[in-house]
Amino acid sequence: MGSDNGDGNNPAQCRVREVLDLVADKWSLYTVSYLGDGPRRFTELKRGIDGISQRMLTVTLRGLERDGILIRTVYQVMPPHVAYELTPMGKSLLPATAPLIEWTSQHLARIDQAREEYDKRSLAQPLAVAR
Amino acid sequence: MGSDNGDGNNPAQCRVREVLDLVADKWSLYTVSYLGDGPRRFTELKRGIDGISQRMLTVTLRGLERDGILIRTVYQVMPPHVAYELTPMGKSLLPATAPLIEWTSQHLARIDQAREEYDKRSLAQPLAVAR
Repeated sequence: MGSDNGDGNNPAQCRVREVLDLVADKWSLYTVSYLGDGPRRFTELKRGIDGISQRMLTVTLRGLERDGILIRTVYQVMPPHVAYELTPMGKSLLPATAPLIEWTSQHLARIDQAREEYDKRSLAQPLAVAR
Repeated sequence: MGSDNGDGNNPAQCRVREVLDLVADKWSLYTVSYLGDGPRRFTELKRGIDGISQRMLTVTLRGLERDGILIRTVYQVMPPHVAYELTPMGKSLLPATAPLIEWTSQHLARIDQAREEYDKRSLAQPLAVAR
């Protein structure tokens, strides 16, 4: 391994990871992909993204808004509501996330099988300690 | 929103998210992308994936092994060591992660700018409460 092969403190590489940390998590991927169909209210997102908690959705939306991936619009009607929609930059993220979501759904069965085999092996023999 | 649009307890959708939870995190993406160049020892990965802790690398590698994405081989030499390499399924994941990593590095500057503007706006006005 050369010392310049990701070994040092490459600031650009650090930054990429910092942003990936936000964008590359399942809730962000799901939210962005869900908003790909058009603007949505908070309650619609909450209902549509199966399994997300109110707090996690709030945190995810705020992170994506801060990164300029979505816009939050407050409608001062009665009752007031808020809608979220992708910015042009957010829309450009869609094709970048699609292959990962696609790959995952295509490989579910094989991953299941791999997990089952791994768990059987782990039961059969104690964990090796060498790294 | 129709009630069949991700609204219910679609088991397949749940499973996709469960797997995405593992695959779609920055450390997994980095580890898979790093192993795209060929097999690596634990110490090489630790050195090469800037910022990862020993424990996080261990957890990440174990998860990816369990999912059938990499193979862990113990070499019984002195001193013993372990090498990690992508399985054929792991290799098929590479092209699916590349666009997200690529998108992130291309949009770093614009995301930085968006964050700066967001933080300025947040300072200027208190958080709205309406969702």
